[in-house]
Amino acid sequence: MRKVLIIGVGAGDPDYVTVQAVKALNTVDAFFLIDKGSAKDDLVQLRRDICEQHITGHPYRFVQATDPERDRTADAYGDAVKDWHHRRAEIFERMIADELTDDGVGAILVWGDPSLYDGTIRIVEELLDRGNVAFDYDVIPGVSSLHSLTARHRIPLNRIGEPIHITPGRLLADGMPAGQDNVVVMLDGDCAFRHVKDNDVDIYWGAYLGTKDEILFSGPVVEVGPQIEKARAQARERKGWVMDTYLLRRRRA
Amino acid sequence: MRKVLIIGVGAGDPDYVTVQAVKALNTVDAFFLIDKGSAKDDLVQLRRDICEQHITGHPYRFVQATDPERDRTADAYGDAVKDWHHRRAEIFERMIADELTDDGVGAILVWGDPSLYDGTIRIVEELLDRGNVAFDYDVIPGVSSLHSLTARHRIPLNRIGEPIHITPGRLLADGMPAGQDNVVVMLDGDCAFRHVKDNDVDIYWGAYLGTKDEILFSGPVVEVGPQIEKARAQARERKGWVMDTYLLRRRRA
Ligand SMILES: C[S@@+](CC[C@H](N)C(=O)[O-])C[C@H]1O[C@@H](n2cnc3c(N)ncnc32)[C@H](O)[C@@H]1O
Ligand SMILES: C[S@@+](CC[C@H](N)C(=O)[O-])C[C@H]1O[C@@H](n2cnc3c(N)ncnc32)[C@H](O)[C@@H]1O
Repeated sequence: MRKVLIIGVGAGDPDYVTVQAVKALNTVDAFFLIDKGSAKDDLVQLRRDICEQHITGHPYRFVQATDPERDRTADAYGDAVKDWHHRRAEIFERMIADELTDDGVGAILVWGDPSLYDGTIRIVEELLDRGNVAFDYDVIPGVSSLHSLTARHRIPLNRIGEPIHITPGRLLADGMPAGQDNVVVMLDGDCAFRHVKDNDVDIYWGAYLGTKDEILFSGPVVEVGPQIEKARAQARERKGWVMDTYLLRRRRA
Repeated sequence: MRKVLIIGVGAGDPDYVTVQAVKALNTVDAFFLIDKGSAKDDLVQLRRDICEQHITGHPYRFVQATDPERDRTADAYGDAVKDWHHRRAEIFERMIADELTDDGVGAILVWGDPSLYDGTIRIVEELLDRGNVAFDYDVIPGVSSLHSLTARHRIPLNRIGEPIHITPGRLLADGMPAGQDNVVVMLDGDCAFRHVKDNDVDIYWGAYLGTKDEILFSGPVVEVGPQIEKARAQARERKGWVMDTYLLRRRRA
């Protein structure tokens, strides 16, 4: 039986990779990579570096394809993402069918943890549902940007006994989600913290966490927000892309 | 300057430990351990095993103390936890002062990720505030039970574009938190999923995740809930302790 491994490699520092992931890497024949073209090629390179550093002795190759275009103008965000996943699934299907022998091991390296705002598990499930190629698969967890954010700021994610809320930036259009005092924002294309006007909310913000480009800011969101916007725009200009995440926490009375 | 490392070792499989953690372990002179007495000694042993397996050449020792009693009957849950943290802080303060030379490195190994429902960072900050011992400190992230849960079930934590809610079991007394469709429950002493009566909610439950004792259940919570209660009680009886976490997800209409 063919096997596909979905391996979380951690979100940032190449040393976030786990011993379990390293062991898994050393069983892989073909790494399937879909790259985004130009801008985020750093991230593709980082995956290659991780393989080079940790694979000892086992022969492997990279099988690369270009990411299908994603309709970022579509009204229905969910539908556009699903369509994009669907086209990625077709690419992976061909890769598995063409590049793996009957007992070959393929792998997809996922940034951070494979379960957190990542479509790979869904894509692989879709492939199995379609039934055109048969394979077994496994998921290997990783250090997510959730954990790299708090580690780099040296803060707890939650206060004692309190719940934690994680949300995509687009759901912050009306400010803090109702009733939530610890909110982590991911997938934020455009500084959604601007919508938070509360004087009692602190932000702990990080970009390129765990890498040599890392930027950290923290303080009352109404005060440091503008500084973050500026730093983020400059960094994006310089590198061509930016990846940031942050915790918004309401101070206790 | 003395240095203290708060190192996340992953929640379950000893192979969840990261390369960064392994490198850090190899700089440590003294590991500070507070054990809970009898029942959870497995977890202390697991930390020792991780050190034995990954530390090559650097001499180290374990400095162990017994966990202060925690008032589980107190009305004010938060106050009881704070008081317990406070007494733990005093123990760590003595350990750092007595066991580290002026440029020594001490470490506290934390289960899972140090930022997620764990008091170590707060304790270390309290020590610095008191100012009786001076030291520098660093946090090394780990694979949390959040990520081991979803990896072992091979599921995404969130559906596309949806927020995620993480909560201690005690906040589930009235069923699903209002407006939340993806709820992860941790620190649940007593099967709080019993309070969820909704027919359209699935549970993905795991105990001893990533270990040889791992138990997984999934399905509609009203159907598999009773099976989980039984399996959990049996496992707890057999091992003397149980650690479980789960995702509750409302099916889409
Ligand atoms: C598609 S999601 C994937 C998340 C990933 N699976 C994880 O576990 O972190 C990408 C988002 O993760 C966050 N992110 C990932 N890595 C990051 C890093 N090193 N620094 C800051 N944010 C990061 C950003 O919010 C980004 O928009
Ligand atoms: C005090 S919290 C610490 C969490 C830890 N810092 C983490 O990152 O997972 C302990 C809770 O974590 C969850 N947990 C930790 N490890 C687990 C495992 N291996 N299997 C199931 N649940 C686990 C349980 O809900 C438990 O009550």
